[in-house]
Amino acid sequence: MIEQLYEACVAAVRTAGAIMKSHTGERMSVQFKTSWSDLLTEVDTAVEQAVRSAILARFPDHGFLGEEGGGGWEKEFTWVLDPVDGTTNFAHTLPNFVCSLACYRGREALVGAIYDPSRDELFSAKRGEGAWLNGYRIQVDPATTLRESLVSTNLLWDLREDRALNLPGMQEIGKHVRGIRSLGAAALEMAYVACGRLSAYLQWRLSPWDFGAGLLIVAEAGGLVTRADGSEIDPTQRGSILASNGRIHGEIIGYLQQHRTE
Amino acid sequence: MIEQLYEACVAAVRTAGAIMKSHTGERMSVQFKTSWSDLLTEVDTAVEQAVRSAILARFPDHGFLGEEGGGGWEKEFTWVLDPVDGTTNFAHTLPNFVCSLACYRGREALVGAIYDPSRDELFSAKRGEGAWLNGYRIQVDPATTLRESLVSTNLLWDLREDRALNLPGMQEIGKHVRGIRSLGAAALEMAYVACGRLSAYLQWRLSPWDFGAGLLIVAEAGGLVTRADGSEIDPTQRGSILASNGRIHGEIIGYLQQHRTE
Repeated sequence: MIEQLYEACVAAVRTAGAIMKSHTGERMSVQFKTSWSDLLTEVDTAVEQAVRSAILARFPDHGFLGEEGGGGWEKEFTWVLDPVDGTTNFAHTLPNFVCSLACYRGREALVGAIYDPSRDELFSAKRGEGAWLNGYRIQVDPATTLRESLVSTNLLWDLREDRALNLPGMQEIGKHVRGIRSLGAAALEMAYVACGRLSAYLQWRLSPWDFGAGLLIVAEAGGLVTRADGSEIDPTQRGSILASNGRIHGEIIGYLQQHRTE
Repeated sequence: MIEQLYEACVAAVRTAGAIMKSHTGERMSVQFKTSWSDLLTEVDTAVEQAVRSAILARFPDHGFLGEEGGGGWEKEFTWVLDPVDGTTNFAHTLPNFVCSLACYRGREALVGAIYDPSRDELFSAKRGEGAWLNGYRIQVDPATTLRESLVSTNLLWDLREDRALNLPGMQEIGKHVRGIRSLGAAALEMAYVACGRLSAYLQWRLSPWDFGAGLLIVAEAGGLVTRADGSEIDPTQRGSILASNGRIHGEIIGYLQQHRTE
């Protein structure tokens, strides 16, 4: 069973990537965004329809949760899709946009895949069997301290609402890390934690489709994913995400707790 | 003359890219950074030697300024090299590291090239003739307001020194933009401004080799590069960089001036 789910999951995100590429062209440059909101709606819709119909044709009794809604979590199996993760990047033709898809049985992810069409990189995982990048086994960063870590977050994400929830804690973390990055694509940043390119990723107010596949891929690569306060994640609920290599998890939570604003 | 300089510049950064790639492998993953500082020194040195010897063999009377020092700015022509821009990314096998090279006559850049080996993307420019990405003409983002702009900066870069110079101004800017990114590679971020993937890039305390090629490539793509206070850049001097599409330059400087900490 898990093999069939895995195969369908990987095939679907590759199809999604092909759709994204067909809309940006090989040569990503500024002229493609003349009407960026139209482009986004068009690509989001095209990807979601293609993935939804491919999955439901094969597994007609499964639930499917996408950005357009749809029945999720009531059935035994639920697929969770983010058709274009990193939509602002995509609209600006900035690399770092992916398709993210996972299949859950109840609250437990069985398979997950994140595909980056601009680099042709496929991150995937099967529960209990490991995680891969283009077929090669991946593992989280071996760093044991923040001092040797590269951490990503979308620091100013919610400044416009005058609620820079993560700013005080991140400022403290910023004093202790090797570097801070903001790539602007939650699923991709979780995939990068899984393969060790990032040591940790921290973000507030993510939706189930943002982290649905990343949760499993990070865990199967030897990492840890919790809420920002260290509590367990209910994957059906919106909230914060702290994905790390596990070893620096406590240090990050410690700094965040010293500077709580929530 | 400018054709020969351009050809040599482009050939040199491509050679640099090949050296970087030979050290990370096609499959970038965590095992390549077991001794990251050794790897960096090795690659930095290998790239600098290869580029320096290729350039000086062809133009023996030119000056050459790299991270290892060397005579710069006293001769009529000076080459300015950053062998690996985005060294922390490179060490973590995170994409977003480039080689940057430019040739100046006096204080005026004649040709510049920035090469990203992980995406095989070459950004280049010739004074007065334009800027290109892999041979295609590029232009800056058409955005006219911050509200529709994607801006990058290395926000927490200097927090460890307790001098978050750019934080208050950036927080203000963060309230008005579509998104903030931190890619961690000054030359690449300037190249992305040139091709419209980013609307602006802002950073403090950069060195001549960080922005030597970016200055010209952004200008030739129709953009504007100044210091963060809007003043003209002396390319021989370390300092801040604000590279933008020109149209949002004033709006950014305005917010920075409201929150000056320098």
